[in-house]
Amino acid sequence: MSEDRRTELGDLGEFGLIDRLTKGFDPKVSSTVYGVGDDAAVLERNEHEYTLISTDMLVEGVHFNLMYMPFKHLGYKAVAVNLSDIIAMNGKPEQITVSLAVSNRFPLEALEELYEGIRMACAVYNVDLIGGDTTSSYSGLIVSVTAIGVVAKEKVVYRTGAKPNDLLVVTGDLGAAYMGLQVLEREKEVYKANPAIQPDLEGFDYVIERQLKPEARKDIIGFLAELDVVPTAMIDVSDGLASEVLHICKGSNVGAMVYNAKLPIDSATSLSAIDFNLDPVTCVLNGGEDYELLFTVRQEDFDKIKGNPHMTIIGYVTNADQGVFLVDSNDSLIPLKAQGWNHFG
Amino acid sequence: MSEDRRTELGDLGEFGLIDRLTKGFDPKVSSTVYGVGDDAAVLERNEHEYTLISTDMLVEGVHFNLMYMPFKHLGYKAVAVNLSDIIAMNGKPEQITVSLAVSNRFPLEALEELYEGIRMACAVYNVDLIGGDTTSSYSGLIVSVTAIGVVAKEKVVYRTGAKPNDLLVVTGDLGAAYMGLQVLEREKEVYKANPAIQPDLEGFDYVIERQLKPEARKDIIGFLAELDVVPTAMIDVSDGLASEVLHICKGSNVGAMVYNAKLPIDSATSLSAIDFNLDPVTCVLNGGEDYELLFTVRQEDFDKIKGNPHMTIIGYVTNADQGVFLVDSNDSLIPLKAQGWNHFG
Repeated sequence: MSEDRRTELGDLGEFGLIDRLTKGFDPKVSSTVYGVGDDAAVLERNEHEYTLISTDMLVEGVHFNLMYMPFKHLGYKAVAVNLSDIIAMNGKPEQITVSLAVSNRFPLEALEELYEGIRMACAVYNVDLIGGDTTSSYSGLIVSVTAIGVVAKEKVVYRTGAKPNDLLVVTGDLGAAYMGLQVLEREKEVYKANPAIQPDLEGFDYVIERQLKPEARKDIIGFLAELDVVPTAMIDVSDGLASEVLHICKGSNVGAMVYNAKLPIDSATSLSAIDFNLDPVTCVLNGGEDYELLFTVRQEDFDKIKGNPHMTIIGYVTNADQGVFLVDSNDSLIPLKAQGWNHFG
Repeated sequence: MSEDRRTELGDLGEFGLIDRLTKGFDPKVSSTVYGVGDDAAVLERNEHEYTLISTDMLVEGVHFNLMYMPFKHLGYKAVAVNLSDIIAMNGKPEQITVSLAVSNRFPLEALEELYEGIRMACAVYNVDLIGGDTTSSYSGLIVSVTAIGVVAKEKVVYRTGAKPNDLLVVTGDLGAAYMGLQVLEREKEVYKANPAIQPDLEGFDYVIERQLKPEARKDIIGFLAELDVVPTAMIDVSDGLASEVLHICKGSNVGAMVYNAKLPIDSATSLSAIDFNLDPVTCVLNGGEDYELLFTVRQEDFDKIKGNPHMTIIGYVTNADQGVFLVDSNDSLIPLKAQGWNHFG
């Protein structure tokens, strides 16, 4: 590497960095159906099915803080967020591997708690732990999970299939996990200032639960199958809704209109946001860690989706040249921008 | 976790820790053929083939030192050592995922070098990079690789199939990577004491290459297929020969005799060892990072193996109650003990 070239990682952001590093890695092996660029990679398996593979790394101090994240929750969450990527391909998770880098400051009992959470998640989602690696680290704890799943070939859903006039649908409600993080961060500061003060978490149970123990929407894959709906595009909501809508629009070369008034926000989320002087819609758009699903369906599937308590139609797909907008309560069009996370900023 | 229980990780060692943490994770999903406990997990794929999955995490300061490990070599090595685990199941690697945790102190150009090494390894071994994750870290660099491969069902080789009277075979030569590490560590200390002194690496090219750029023995899988030999048990030599012989003996419930005089040691390795006042045999038994293959074959395959320049018969398998021994040059029996690595010690 020449000494006179130095590009700071913070100038690129996570997606820019991944684009730069994986450029030119075009699949050459016949069993690789789809490589880098979606929630999971897609591999040839047999006549009727594909194998799905996804991997995520959680780093102490970046993705979690052990001051308020119990080990058991961390284990559960590390699994759930990875399974969410398999589910976002319309797939069924089947196995995981878990690798840990861990410093001597943790006793065995802490790791046993972590694995208790992993065990719970394996039971809830019916997946097997099939391998991993355990090594020491000179500083924090790092958890790397790889999830393996299966999907029928005719049911695999990429980010790339949305078409103009498709409906934009989101599951559950959004913004809660972000508000949970705000509550936990505030209590951490209070605690640091005065450890004698009891944490004031009353009324925040729901948003804290969404932050500490998110669930992957495996149930939605079942509902979609029962409704006989195959989305045209799908992604999980991990970085905030704005970022995910833009991923689908970029991947599918389309635009979108998202209606502010349609966004599903739990009242506990709204109340927490108000308490923090935050706009709940901003929490939804840029908050992240919801692990809900965002997908597009054909207009003809409207009747199957409407009124479903797990799904909310939040807008529709347009032509790419129409752009990607949020329609606010005054019918003003606000261009959607992804803030996402920039770990390197 | 109760406050009064605290078991130090260093008291358990890596294998003890893994045993404790993965206890009770018995496979329940029908597509899981074999989970934790071999070089790779084995998953159902189609009528004729299994999918193999293996994962490894490399941590700066534990597995590599950037003072003497160039980024490009690190990328290459991270891939090669993972593919070695797929190969150790008699499989063909097909894909990898690569996750990085990286601190701001590295510029983009360093990561591009790392990915250049990954790209080279993908080309040499004909595997696709299909995914990964990139995140920041507050301290060092961490590289987590998952390798995916395929094997014909009748050709998969576990650690568990060795039978008394089978021959114990090792590929290539052993101990060189460990000596390469000693040379690099010595030069690092010299450099730290006086940066003006030029490194004295003459005569150490081979052992340094084995340390910095190990190769997975994909060629051996081809040779075995040509010879029409399916080993009864196989493992890759990553933690030193002693540890691997004991893994096979434990997995297969057998004993073994390993002949000191038969161990394949390159003259460059022996000369380096003498230079460092080390016994070359100790380097072979406890050194690690050779990434050769250790396997057992039936006596009737002797004619196919003997004289093969890539393979050396180093001993034979006995009944479990006969124990696991090294036979030294005086025909004394020395019990084999695994030192392995204890990252937490």
